[in-house]
Amino acid sequence: MIQTIHLKKRPVGAPTLDNFELTESENNLNIKDGEVLLETKYLSVDPYLRGRMSDAKSYVPPFEVGKPINSGIIAEVIDSKNENFKKGDFVRDRLDWKTLQVSDGENLQKVNPDKAPLSAYLGIVGMTGLTAYLGLHEIGKPKKGETLIVSGAAGAVGSVVGQIGKILGLTVIGIAGSDEKVELLKSEFGFDRGINYKTTDDMKAAIKEAAPNGVDIYFDNVGGEISDAVLFSINKFARTINCGAISVYNNTETPTGVSVQPFLIKNSALMQGFIVSNYSDKFPEAMEQLSTWLGEEKLTYRETIVEGFENTPQAFLDMMDGKKKGKMIVKV
Amino acid sequence: MIQTIHLKKRPVGAPTLDNFELTESENNLNIKDGEVLLETKYLSVDPYLRGRMSDAKSYVPPFEVGKPINSGIIAEVIDSKNENFKKGDFVRDRLDWKTLQVSDGENLQKVNPDKAPLSAYLGIVGMTGLTAYLGLHEIGKPKKGETLIVSGAAGAVGSVVGQIGKILGLTVIGIAGSDEKVELLKSEFGFDRGINYKTTDDMKAAIKEAAPNGVDIYFDNVGGEISDAVLFSINKFARTINCGAISVYNNTETPTGVSVQPFLIKNSALMQGFIVSNYSDKFPEAMEQLSTWLGEEKLTYRETIVEGFENTPQAFLDMMDGKKKGKMIVKV
Repeated sequence: MIQTIHLKKRPVGAPTLDNFELTESENNLNIKDGEVLLETKYLSVDPYLRGRMSDAKSYVPPFEVGKPINSGIIAEVIDSKNENFKKGDFVRDRLDWKTLQVSDGENLQKVNPDKAPLSAYLGIVGMTGLTAYLGLHEIGKPKKGETLIVSGAAGAVGSVVGQIGKILGLTVIGIAGSDEKVELLKSEFGFDRGINYKTTDDMKAAIKEAAPNGVDIYFDNVGGEISDAVLFSINKFARTINCGAISVYNNTETPTGVSVQPFLIKNSALMQGFIVSNYSDKFPEAMEQLSTWLGEEKLTYRETIVEGFENTPQAFLDMMDGKKKGKMIVKV
Repeated sequence: MIQTIHLKKRPVGAPTLDNFELTESENNLNIKDGEVLLETKYLSVDPYLRGRMSDAKSYVPPFEVGKPINSGIIAEVIDSKNENFKKGDFVRDRLDWKTLQVSDGENLQKVNPDKAPLSAYLGIVGMTGLTAYLGLHEIGKPKKGETLIVSGAAGAVGSVVGQIGKILGLTVIGIAGSDEKVELLKSEFGFDRGINYKTTDDMKAAIKEAAPNGVDIYFDNVGGEISDAVLFSINKFARTINCGAISVYNNTETPTGVSVQPFLIKNSALMQGFIVSNYSDKFPEAMEQLSTWLGEEKLTYRETIVEGFENTPQAFLDMMDGKKKGKMIVKV
């Protein structure tokens, strides 16, 4: 039996379980020469998937209604007619939300379960870590002693960004949505200061207080009002990495806020949209650095693992709600 | 007799003549060793001066109330005790709005009236041209065949940006505020297409129509709603040069508009504040290129010359109103 999760209908505003459909079908999969049969072990649910559920131009094509959703998946090779892969290998790829599927092996990347836990290849040594590392380096261009502010700081990417910032000698401030998360930023991820935006009336003032020397780098995972407030503290030559805008992804109208242009002009500041896949030539060196830091225990991570393929849609909704800490992963 | 124009009081919203004061005083200037006596010949009035009239943090300190305003000026050396300058030399510097003043010569830059008209050193081969050239190159990074859109296109900087774009093989679209200006863009400055934003109801649609292949580079002189509309047409890896935001400089509240972050993310796009003075190491090569193009008649320019030092405030107001075409200059 194969289970598949389809996009049933496109969400308008916040997604609900109604947007997804789980179907079951007979396993009649046969592999041909060059192909492998894959059994899904771990699925990654991420904010950017929300964008793909809408029928709008973006950096990846939208999901099609009635077709399986796809995301980063760790799978086990359970049968192979491809000389590069043997039964028992673990691989990573962007794959369909199916319990079993066939691949031609082209984009499969082998992962080593002895070097890091399998789920980490969807997180800190996978796209999450690469996003944090490459966004911070390639756009943020951090210099020791600068001030870095991170929104969505307790999230999968944000918590790695802050830790890398500390490794590089930055002052690191995190913005998150609960006192518990803010405490975690400081106690577990080594952030210097944290701001709970849900209990803070005046974010402009809170950011000014937390960053008395101003903000040199803003790693932005959320967009919206939080990012508007950061503008009032940016320094000359500040760099903003626009990595995500989770706060507005559910908007049905074009979101509005503070006009950034006057702030950019008066500070000679930069904002740049960041998509990790644009930097794939730098993945090997970045993964090497991330796994070294992980081995040296300079990096730590949190993940929330939800058991059961059928719970993937709910895991996605919980991740969007910000209810969970760290990287959200489904274990099949 | 020396005439001086002071900032009488800071403008709130749109400036008026009441914000300025002209005073007259005896000429008792004496130069010491190393100094020169300067007679103002041409003054430049520019949108960025509006920002300096407010008491807000910016890239240059605000003007002080009761003190002279300053801007780019071409002056004649009428007496010299500085070996680098002799009587009859013409020089350029940021100088006070005075008919006569003393300088230590430190920042004076000699200009050659035989190579270009004196007023051009405040315009196309001065800061205006440098702003257009360096903004387009350093942030825009133009590649032949791309689409460039310019706001404030009939203005001093915008008209040069468009011409350079055509020299470099770009498709160039200009946005301006009258049919006459739009016609001028095409007939005199070689723009491919123009949009009159004052008579266009749906700027989003008009930009999409004018730029069917999308916008690769946006040279933004105006900010506000026009810039919001451009966002809907930007291409992957688009670059926006935030050079000016004249449409919001008079705002008394923080201006708001479309949130740029989602557009930047989905297009891996860049926005960067541009201040020409950050690129002063590149002035010599840029001036060389600009004067070469001017000599080859590949560049042309319009200037509005207002006669009379005492008319400087009105010239500034008219420039802010967009009533005039090209670079606004006061001839003393």
